[in-house]
This record gives sequence, structure tokens and C-alpha cells, in this order.
Amino acid sequence: MQISQRVQNLVLSPIRALAPYADAATAKGIKVYHLNIGQPDIETPAQFMEAIRQYDHKIVAYGNSQGEKSLLQAIAGYYKSWDMPYTADNIFITNGGSEALSFAIGSLCDPDDELLVFEPYYANYNSFAALGNVKVVGIPTDPANGYRLPDQATVEKYLTPKTRAILVTNPGNPTGVVFNKQEMEMLTRVALKHNLGLIADEVYREFVYDGAYQSFGTIRELDDHLVIIDSVSKRYSACGARIGCIITRNAELCKQLKKCCASRLCVAGIMQEAAAALYSTPKSYLEAVNQEYKKRRDTIKAELAKIPGLTSSEPQGAFYVMVKLPVDNAKDFAIWLLKDFNVNGETVMYAPGNGFYVDPRNGINEARLAYVINCEDIKKAIGLLAAGVKAYNSRSK
Amino acid sequence: MQISQRVQNLVLSPIRALAPYADAATAKGIKVYHLNIGQPDIETPAQFMEAIRQYDHKIVAYGNSQGEKSLLQAIAGYYKSWDMPYTADNIFITNGGSEALSFAIGSLCDPDDELLVFEPYYANYNSFAALGNVKVVGIPTDPANGYRLPDQATVEKYLTPKTRAILVTNPGNPTGVVFNKQEMEMLTRVALKHNLGLIADEVYREFVYDGAYQSFGTIRELDDHLVIIDSVSKRYSACGARIGCIITRNAELCKQLKKCCASRLCVAGIMQEAAAALYSTPKSYLEAVNQEYKKRRDTIKAELAKIPGLTSSEPQGAFYVMVKLPVDNAKDFAIWLLKDFNVNGETVMYAPGNGFYVDPRNGINEARLAYVINCEDIKKAIGLLAAGVKAYNSRSK
Repeated sequence: MQISQRVQNLVLSPIRALAPYADAATAKGIKVYHLNIGQPDIETPAQFMEAIRQYDHKIVAYGNSQGEKSLLQAIAGYYKSWDMPYTADNIFITNGGSEALSFAIGSLCDPDDELLVFEPYYANYNSFAALGNVKVVGIPTDPANGYRLPDQATVEKYLTPKTRAILVTNPGNPTGVVFNKQEMEMLTRVALKHNLGLIADEVYREFVYDGAYQSFGTIRELDDHLVIIDSVSKRYSACGARIGCIITRNAELCKQLKKCCASRLCVAGIMQEAAAALYSTPKSYLEAVNQEYKKRRDTIKAELAKIPGLTSSEPQGAFYVMVKLPVDNAKDFAIWLLKDFNVNGETVMYAPGNGFYVDPRNGINEARLAYVINCEDIKKAIGLLAAGVKAYNSRSK
Repeated sequence: MQISQRVQNLVLSPIRALAPYADAATAKGIKVYHLNIGQPDIETPAQFMEAIRQYDHKIVAYGNSQGEKSLLQAIAGYYKSWDMPYTADNIFITNGGSEALSFAIGSLCDPDDELLVFEPYYANYNSFAALGNVKVVGIPTDPANGYRLPDQATVEKYLTPKTRAILVTNPGNPTGVVFNKQEMEMLTRVALKHNLGLIADEVYREFVYDGAYQSFGTIRELDDHLVIIDSVSKRYSACGARIGCIITRNAELCKQLKKCCASRLCVAGIMQEAAAALYSTPKSYLEAVNQEYKKRRDTIKAELAKIPGLTSSEPQGAFYVMVKLPVDNAKDFAIWLLKDFNVNGETVMYAPGNGFYVDPRNGINEARLAYVINCEDIKKAIGLLAAGVKAYNSRSK
């Protein structure tokens, strides 16, 4: 039997692609500091497991396709606290942010349609596009300019009659950049002027460390064009619950999303009840987590500054920093760190940067570091990176 | 912004499409007997909730993309008991059978490729195909002939250079038909001769009431062509757990499925642990459930035989029966039953049959009835159907 071209086109995520090397290192007894994956070490609020323990149904039955009422209302309440007018009717519960992205891309783009992203961008977007035969078009941003967005005229150069939507991550993954007012206004103008969808992946909304954060959901003129992607994964350190959602006030899209949701019957009800309970977590939880990540951000910045020849993004949000490493090839270096390097039985792992570009010949000496480990471990991990750079560049080839 | 053609092409499942009419009836205080949806009333084994209550992780973290080891091994063990040689490496855990079907169709078919089904077929297959821009080609079977498969020559008439796979449900949904040896050999010959994939949806494997059941997984020569769809939903009455899997010994497909799984990161680990526990349910549970459904099957057959002019499939498995109603339009009649009919405040709901055909102008007076309620209720429901037919056909128009 034949295998489809579209799955053959899928590229393994740079975040997990080197896992076999890490497993081999671990098997040799080497401790690996994982900066490659955005899996927070923060405890999930106790409300989650409490809700699960209280779940008491004799039959684990199908639920509502769009989502359980308790969760839809909890999310609507959360958005109200952010001054956004989304009601339960505008919200569609999904299997993680992943399914929300699949639905968003599939609902706005037919095969061969184009989806604009700003490079570097979250690598898994490629998979959702590839499975739907949608073409991802990358608009470069410049590491030297802190990965800020280009101006409207530059963005418009990338538009074709096939362009259907712009997909942004704000706060940014992998750069940690948070859009400023000018950038948000520019994107709004482009979406309205060219009748495009704006898919805003805002799963890191609570993780902003400098100044205020504005959601695209507060811009009313965008209502008919905006699709918000959200999730409890990072917000409440509940990545394994696989509860995300897609949110829009576009009435026609709501109608279509109902059908998308019905097609796969429902999302696990128990996970939804537990996720609903998370939204009753006191605000102090999110504030404490924010402060912890701010400390980590400051720590990783300070440590990275000590590595000669390394440049980095200025992360104001999320928990990633994109760096340009003083090595010729960041992927080769990453493999070498796992295979051939250790200091007292310890080494470090990151995600090679070229996987965050449409063309993997770009970003060849860049890397994404996730600061999801505690400050002490960050210091050790970046210390290992520094020692690794030195040893790698002075090794006899 | 534009909405894609592919989501506009999605048709609401006939199983849920009339839900608003049922809700309105319920709101008027009318009791609705639900024969429309395959939601069993059987209790989920206690093992499920016990496993959940024992789950104790401080962080609800991402898990393995392919699935948790405990569940992969439990499923491999189950297949061993069926004399099938699948190992954990051949199994990929999915968000319900639904995602397994999406992955199977997307992995074998590119846009505009063709997927063969035998009509009538499970309506949701349309959605997974539509979202992947795959064309569903229906091969008719004959109600008068008990919906048995046509011969090889007839099947081959539907093959084109675009045909990539045959998708079958065995035991059948919506007909309840179980393939005989000749039918299985015919499908095997066609798949091998024309290098096609054979996607076998066997989620009702444990629900066979007459004679033995053979899985396609026992036919070794099919190994390279076979993709099995499975799920705990019906087997253990755990539809809301959303745990399914896709199984294959085709090495190249396994490689590709790893990437599909990685693209959406993982399936909820808690649900997987609970599903793994289900596989430790004693065999007596499945036997008791089987006996209960056999009684229900016998009951519904006997009751349906009392309705003049009604013909039906001979269900040997699953928990559905496809009937040809003595009315001119089964969908109009279904709506009328919910809107304009009741006997002492009770009425009945089923899934109109034309939604189980590629062209909804077919199966216009057919219906799918799910016998997922107890025998007493089945008698009442079919009694209401009989009274409804009489009243409907003698009403003044």
C-alpha cells in the first residue's frame, strides 16, 4: 500500500527530535539538563486532582461536542476578567492547543492555501499545516533587531491571492518577544485590509514579565477576523491534561467549528471537569508562577551574557529565549553535547533553531532554550553550555 | 475572512443532527427513548475510576507521543489473547477511535485520493475524509440481501488510479452485519492484488452474537496492508475516556504514525492509565455484556417483526440494526416523532438512514436503531415506533 505524501512531508519536531541521544546519555548515567522542551516543573494546582477524585459517574459517557458547560463557563469567566466579551457560545474545547490549531488552520485554509508566520515560529505549526496540505510562508525577523516584526509594507510583500491567514504566537515561542502596540496595530490593519484571518496563539498570556500585555481579543474591530488559541497546559502546568480551546466571535466560523467538534464526538469529560476546576485557582497562584519565571528569565539572561560571541532575543514573556550560538552548526553541537561531552557526568540539551524556520538552512546556528527549570539548575545548564562551546570550538577535527 | 471549502463541506452527523428537536421535546416534558446514538447504558468497570483515584503525580506533564507504556502493553496483551502478534511498537494511542481514523485516512490518502466504503457506512467517516480532502466512494449493498458485500468483480468496478484504501467496519455500523469467510477473503484479495490499504474498524469486536468472529489481524498475508482501528469506548463502555488506537505491522506506516503522534504531543496520560486498567477487567465482564446485548438484539428483532411493511438487516454483531421503514421519508418522520407525536408523554428517536450514504438521496426511508437501552425500554421504544408509523401514515396532510 502507498503512504501519503503529506505524512512523508511531516518533519519531526526539533523539540523532540534529539530525544534518542538524550536517552542514550541518560542510559550511560549522564544527567541531562533539559532546556529543549516547554514542560514546566511547576506543580499543577491541587484543584485539578481534587476535581478528578470527586468525579463520580457510573458510565464514562460521551459528552457535549463543543465542550462541557462547566468548562465553557469557567473559560468565559476568565476572559471576562481580562475584559474580553467571549461567551460560552464562542468557545470550543479541544484536545490541547494542538487540536485547536488544526481546527483553526483547517477552517480557514483549503489545500494549497497559504498561512503566514513570522520566523522563527513554533515548529509544530508545520505539522498541522502539512496534514491539511496548507503552505506555511515564513516572513523573516532579524535576531540582530531582537526578532521584532517588520513593517506593514514588508509584510504585504508576502501576500498572494492564496494567503488566508496570519498565525502569530504572543507572547512568542521560541523568541519570548511580546508584541508592542505598533506591531498589534500593524497586524490588525493587514488582517482587515486584506480580509485575512488572524490566528493568535496566546497560550503564554499569563507569562509576561515587563510591562502590560494586550490580547488581540481586546481589539473589537478584529472580531470577525480573530481566532484565539488557548490552553491550560502552560497556564496551570497541566500539559498532560490535553485541554485547549479555540475562541472566535465570527458567527460563520462558530457554525463550522461546531461541525469540526461533532466530527470527533467529544473531548474527555473528566479532563474538562478538572480543567474547569483549575480556573478557580486563586490569582495568587498565577502571580507566584509569573514571579518565579521572571527570576528564571533574569537568571538565564545574566548567564547567557557571560558566553562570548552569543547573542540572544530579549524575552519579555513565555519561557523561551532564542539564541545565536558561537558555533557553526547548532544541531551538530547539540548532538555532540549529548554524545561526546559532559562535565562531572552532566550535560545540557536544547532545541536546534533551524527547525523553527520554513527552510531549515536558516537559523543554522540558532537554538531555543526553555527556562522551565529552577534558577540553580539554569545556572548549571548555561555553565555547561558555556563549557561546551569552548570545548567544541577548540576540539581537533 | 474566508472560511475553507472543506469545513463547509462537513455534514453534521445524522446521529446528532436532530438533537435540537429532542431537546425541545424533553423541554416540553416528553420522555424520548434514544435509539439514535451508540452510547451504551452499561456501567464502566470500576477499574477505570479506581485507576484515576490512584493517579498521583504532582505535575500533570506531557507523556510519550505514541502512548503510555502501561497502556501499549495492556493492548498488546489483549491482542495476544486474540492470537494476533501485535507488539507495543505496532500500537499508537489516539484521542478516541476518531483520531485513529483521521491518522489512518491522512496517512494513506492525499487530497483527491479515493477511499472505498460499503454503503451504508458509519457517517463520521465522511468528516475525517472531508477534513483531509479525501473522496469517499460508496459501493452499495442491498437491504434485500441483508447488506452483504458484493463479489470481487463488482468491487473492482469502483477502483480508479486514485483508490488508496478500503475502509470497513466489522462488526458493522450501522448494519450489525459480521463478515463471513468469503467476504474477508475477497477483501484480502482485492487489497493485495491492487496494493491498497485495508482499514479495519473493529471497535465492536467483542460484540458478536452468532458464531465465531475473525479479525483481519489474524490474516498474516495482510500484514503490510492492514490498519486496525480500535477503542475502549464500546468495549468497556468508556466512550467519554476518548482512548483509541491505530495498529499496524507495516513498518513504513509505523514510522509515519510516530510523526503524526508527535505533532499533537500526546494523549491525556490519566485517561491512558485508566484505560490500561480496563484491560485487566475479568473476561466475565465482556461475556456478561455480550449476553445482555444478545438479549437486546433478539428483543429488538422480535419487536421490529411486528411492524407491517418494515424490513431490517440481520444484525449479528455491534449494537445497531438498519431498517427500511414503511414511510416515505425517514428524516421527516423522525422529526415528526419528536415534534408532533407522543403516547402518554413518550416518544422515540433514531438516526435517519440517508446520512449513512455518500449521496443522501439514497437510504431515504432507512434508519439506524441503536439497541443500547434495556429490553423493557426497547419494547416500549419499538412500540412507540409502531404506533408512530401508523399515526404518521394515516395523518391528514
